[in-house]
Amino acid sequence: MPHEFTLRHRVEFADTDMAGIIHFSSYFRYMEVTEHAFIRSLGFSVADRDSGIGWPRVDVGCSFRSPLRFEDELDVRLVVTAKKSKSLSYAFHITKVGTEPLLEVATGRMTVVCVAMDHETGTMKAARIPEALAAQLEVAPELGEAP
Amino acid sequence: MPHEFTLRHRVEFADTDMAGIIHFSSYFRYMEVTEHAFIRSLGFSVADRDSGIGWPRVDVGCSFRSPLRFEDELDVRLVVTAKKSKSLSYAFHITKVGTEPLLEVATGRMTVVCVAMDHETGTMKAARIPEALAAQLEVAPELGEAP
Amino acid sequence: MPHEFTLRHRVEFADTDMAGIIHFSSYFRYMEVTEHAFIRSLGFSVADRDSGIGWPRVDVGCSFRSPLRFEDELDVRLVVTAKKSKSLSYAFHITKVGTEPLLEVATGRMTVVCVAMDHETGTMKAARIPEALAAQLEVAPELGEAP
Amino acid sequence: MPHEFTLRHRVEFADTDMAGIIHFSSYFRYMEVTEHAFIRSLGFSVADRDSGIGWPRVDVGCSFRSPLRFEDELDVRLVVTAKKSKSLSYAFHITKVGTEPLLEVATGRMTVVCVAMDHETGTMKAARIPEALAAQLEVAPELGEAP
Repeated sequence: MPHEFTLRHRVEFADTDMAGIIHFSSYFRYMEVTEHAFIRSLGFSVADRDSGIGWPRVDVGCSFRSPLRFEDELDVRLVVTAKKSKSLSYAFHITKVGTEPLLEVATGRMTVVCVAMDHETGTMKAARIPEALAAQLEVAPELGEAP
Repeated sequence: MPHEFTLRHRVEFADTDMAGIIHFSSYFRYMEVTEHAFIRSLGFSVADRDSGIGWPRVDVGCSFRSPLRFEDELDVRLVVTAKKSKSLSYAFHITKVGTEPLLEVATGRMTVVCVAMDHETGTMKAARIPEALAAQLEVAPELGEAP
Repeated sequence: MPHEFTLRHRVEFADTDMAGIIHFSSYFRYMEVTEHAFIRSLGFSVADRDSGIGWPRVDVGCSFRSPLRFEDELDVRLVVTAKKSKSLSYAFHITKVGTEPLLEVATGRMTVVCVAMDHETGTMKAARIPEALAAQLEVAPELGEAP
Repeated sequence: MPHEFTLRHRVEFADTDMAGIIHFSSYFRYMEVTEHAFIRSLGFSVADRDSGIGWPRVDVGCSFRSPLRFEDELDVRLVVTAKKSKSLSYAFHITKVGTEPLLEVATGRMTVVCVAMDHETGTMKAARIPEALAAQLEVAPELGEAP
């Protein structure tokens, strides 16, 4: 059952800063884009007006080991690390394409909560992950959830 | 009657790029933030859920004369250049604080259209500018609209 | 000789705003990413430390006809509209993938100037476009530059 | 001796996303802007070409408790939580202005390392925090570093 997903990105000019390297906030963009592509690969959307489901973040983090520069390519590998009735947690392993041995430049994590959005009032409250989506997700086996 | 407004900004680190100067897209942020502060100064909000009014852009542009760098301060002076029943146009004169004579580093423009947002369906259509707001805005006199 | 280039993009979540549609500034990102991919396709980089060449923008603009939403795909077609000794101008035709007939949602333009960057002092001044790159670029024939 | 600093921000339109609330990545912008204002308040700059010092992030994180919306004001209170010879750590307490009792909407953290930038080659390596700056910073006393 799906528990990981990898998406390739390229460091764009607007992602850099005056230090000549990627600005750290860009990694959060790459991680989120990868997460959304993962959900899309399962046949769902993280922002589907009809379902009225949304996925705000409750905790995120990233550690940086080596800088990336303009036009570098990176692979962001998402791993499902926790699956609860109303939330999901992911780890992200970010490597620089073309390095040998493969260089892990950053690792990230995100915990997101499933909410029901009320578009009329603009409010949201925690909700169970839709059954059809939950049925397609599992925690990465190597993380060893007891059966 | 109000027809201009000035807001001071500072070039932040994330606004720069690897060329060591401000990334050009940052000017559009400064212009939009200034526009929204102008509308707020009149007692309104560009995104008021209750009114259901929104302001998408239909045309924008910017010319750049001199680069700005990290921690530079800039004044963005908004001038109302056109006022129609369903749209407004602004010019933006962007100067670098502390230059003598005052250095105009960029000039921008935006035309925005008033729309009624349907938050249920997510659609929008052109609408008359609310009377109370329109009554407070005028084209800058020096632009010489005939009476 | 190369005078146009098309790159496909997807509207990401962070590219949207509370109006439920793409934020207008995202189009400038898509246009710049397309320009840089075009230059890369010719075997060059817009930010090559060794060459010391940079490409600041001197004039940009965009007109918006129809909104895009999260997960929409768009094609950005770059066309070279002017080629001078020290500057290039591009037009961008942005269409929504999958529309029939093809819907042009926005059109943009950019004029960029070639500069020599002095990384020691952080200054830049206009410079001739490197011969090897200039030799590979031409104005789109349909724009009819006189011989 | 300085060990905390507070800066007020406003949620801008471009900081929101289609969920109608602030995009989580905006908090990292607010935190970084606050950090840079703190350093500036001490008479230094985080990106001073003359000193050749830079401050890449090595670890960042943020937990989110309550969403912020367009035009909400927030106070970001930075607290120095660790001071080593080549790195600094900060905690950030983010509260929504005007709430009673004061609502803490998010808490963040950053560890940044001091590096010497070589603008000629574009490389960087860890370096001692300049004496004059280090002399002005201390860990917040309530965090109880042993003397």
